[in-house]
Amino acid sequence: MTELKNDLLLRALLRQPTDRTPLWIMRQAGRYLPEYLKVREEAGSFMKLCQTPELACEVTLQPLRRFPLDAAIIFSDILTIPDVMGLGLHFVEGEGPKFEDPIDTEAEIRNLPRPDVNESLRYVMDAIKLTRRELDGSVPLIGFSGSPWTLAAYMIQGGSSKDFASAKAMIHDEPHLMHTLLGKLADTVTDYLNAQIEHGAQAVQIFDSWGGILSPEAFREFSLRYIEQIVSGLRREHEGRQVPVIVFSKGSNTHLEALADTGCNALGLDWTISLQEARRRVGDRVALQGNLDPAVLLCKPEAIRQQASNVLNSYGQGDGHVFNLGHGITPNVDPDHLGVLVKAVWEMSPAFH
Amino acid sequence: MTELKNDLLLRALLRQPTDRTPLWIMRQAGRYLPEYLKVREEAGSFMKLCQTPELACEVTLQPLRRFPLDAAIIFSDILTIPDVMGLGLHFVEGEGPKFEDPIDTEAEIRNLPRPDVNESLRYVMDAIKLTRRELDGSVPLIGFSGSPWTLAAYMIQGGSSKDFASAKAMIHDEPHLMHTLLGKLADTVTDYLNAQIEHGAQAVQIFDSWGGILSPEAFREFSLRYIEQIVSGLRREHEGRQVPVIVFSKGSNTHLEALADTGCNALGLDWTISLQEARRRVGDRVALQGNLDPAVLLCKPEAIRQQASNVLNSYGQGDGHVFNLGHGITPNVDPDHLGVLVKAVWEMSPAFH
Repeated sequence: MTELKNDLLLRALLRQPTDRTPLWIMRQAGRYLPEYLKVREEAGSFMKLCQTPELACEVTLQPLRRFPLDAAIIFSDILTIPDVMGLGLHFVEGEGPKFEDPIDTEAEIRNLPRPDVNESLRYVMDAIKLTRRELDGSVPLIGFSGSPWTLAAYMIQGGSSKDFASAKAMIHDEPHLMHTLLGKLADTVTDYLNAQIEHGAQAVQIFDSWGGILSPEAFREFSLRYIEQIVSGLRREHEGRQVPVIVFSKGSNTHLEALADTGCNALGLDWTISLQEARRRVGDRVALQGNLDPAVLLCKPEAIRQQASNVLNSYGQGDGHVFNLGHGITPNVDPDHLGVLVKAVWEMSPAFH
Repeated sequence: MTELKNDLLLRALLRQPTDRTPLWIMRQAGRYLPEYLKVREEAGSFMKLCQTPELACEVTLQPLRRFPLDAAIIFSDILTIPDVMGLGLHFVEGEGPKFEDPIDTEAEIRNLPRPDVNESLRYVMDAIKLTRRELDGSVPLIGFSGSPWTLAAYMIQGGSSKDFASAKAMIHDEPHLMHTLLGKLADTVTDYLNAQIEHGAQAVQIFDSWGGILSPEAFREFSLRYIEQIVSGLRREHEGRQVPVIVFSKGSNTHLEALADTGCNALGLDWTISLQEARRRVGDRVALQGNLDPAVLLCKPEAIRQQASNVLNSYGQGDGHVFNLGHGITPNVDPDHLGVLVKAVWEMSPAFH
């Protein structure tokens, strides 16, 4: 076990003192980087890139060679679990993820296997081990998974959707069946995140990307409770260190208090709420991660600096803030613009600590 | 002037007593109705349908022939204003609205005309007059417009978008220019809604369809303040009756209090907040309209009835509630399912009054 030279991310997630605000960027290893596109092309397909540990490791490290970020996040996809459950994940250019065999019958749901994640998702574990070795303690490595509801939404819908209406209809038409599916997914997500932690993930994030499209009652019953179940089943210490858990439920600002009560260490926030208001509402129960609008990275450098300053000011004085975007960086961003943001946070954030 | 036989909608919007909860459905004249598709095909294009008063009137009346709804809403599009400003609106199958000439330069914005809406949008006024005549006082007719921010987002982006990132970038890069554009749009929207009222619209709704994608500061400065400006410039009485104003800012639940303070009579709500919480937050300042998840209309009849009951229960006892969906009805809905919903609201709502 190598020493961790930069533990700012872990300290901030645990609300411990830091001398500046750590930052990483959702989708920091992604299509806005020409070097990513090169490896992606060499790999032949997005799934091949995920499934080849050397390539996944390489693209995970790419953004860190350009920018002094405070974390790496393992390159993978939130939908690897349904893929190894047998749904056949593939990506169609411009349309996002698709499943060859979406599920919608009771028999299909009851027959879904509980995969042995150490076996079927070996490629993720190998990528994590390899990346940890390459990082050599420079910054922590983050692991992640989709939330049960988010996975279920894609599995029923068969791919991406504006409203996931079929998945939502199942909530009301066949709530018991939906609970069966979500229970299975929660078990596997727990296995999966624990395996990532055991193989070297030093923090984990649960992406509830589609929690925000549910009504409040449906959110509590079909998303929140399975997130709680996962958080309570996670291994919270490894290699003699605490392993912080981040929950990011996009568009779920009405549920911040309940999300803070899941037992997680930090909440990811999108940009539609001010950090000041969020902090007031969750008090000192959790750290906050976010929340610059990704569209700001399309702006001129002065505007990027101004908006970064607004985010830091909105959180205000004190520890427990991890700077990030409020959603993934988009493919049309000039990498130099991310450089402007990173520099701004490095320069401006010490004043808040 | 004919007598209005069913004034439940107007009474509920003004928070006056009613003996049941009135309902109408956003996009009630739309693609889920086979009779609509027939007229749409005859018209040749969506714009032609909007621009031909007899056809617009016909499709406006269609849902009322099937269901005992408490209002008609004039068939039109939120983007008619940018169209007559010269941007050239058309619709591409499966891609939504497109502008032939999107705007993004200072010169283009400064040169945008203030259209004479009675002239250039004569077809809307004629459709309203004709529809009022055909309705013959059976139910009130609602007029509408997009909000300045929502119109600007499409005008800059050139069409629909997942994130309207270019429009958001202009907010930060060229705030003065954006204010120039929004000011022009607010003036024209005010003219447009007043003209609709003068030609017979008995209530008006402002659709801030994309308010919810803004950060809180951007929302207040670039969306909310122009909605306020419009509301304060509207003619609030016509034909001896009050003309209620509904503001529907989708995804803006964090701003309910501020929206209630715009001077409007009612707030439209999407389904991601409970009516109970919304009512607690806005007190008795405004009526509330909504907020069933449109996906529920894909469910079985029992589930539709159950979810309708939940919405009524969430608002609870008392007046000031207009039943509606939390967003437009989707094209894949079986019209009979809407029939189930309408019947349920008719049957169950008297117990709440």
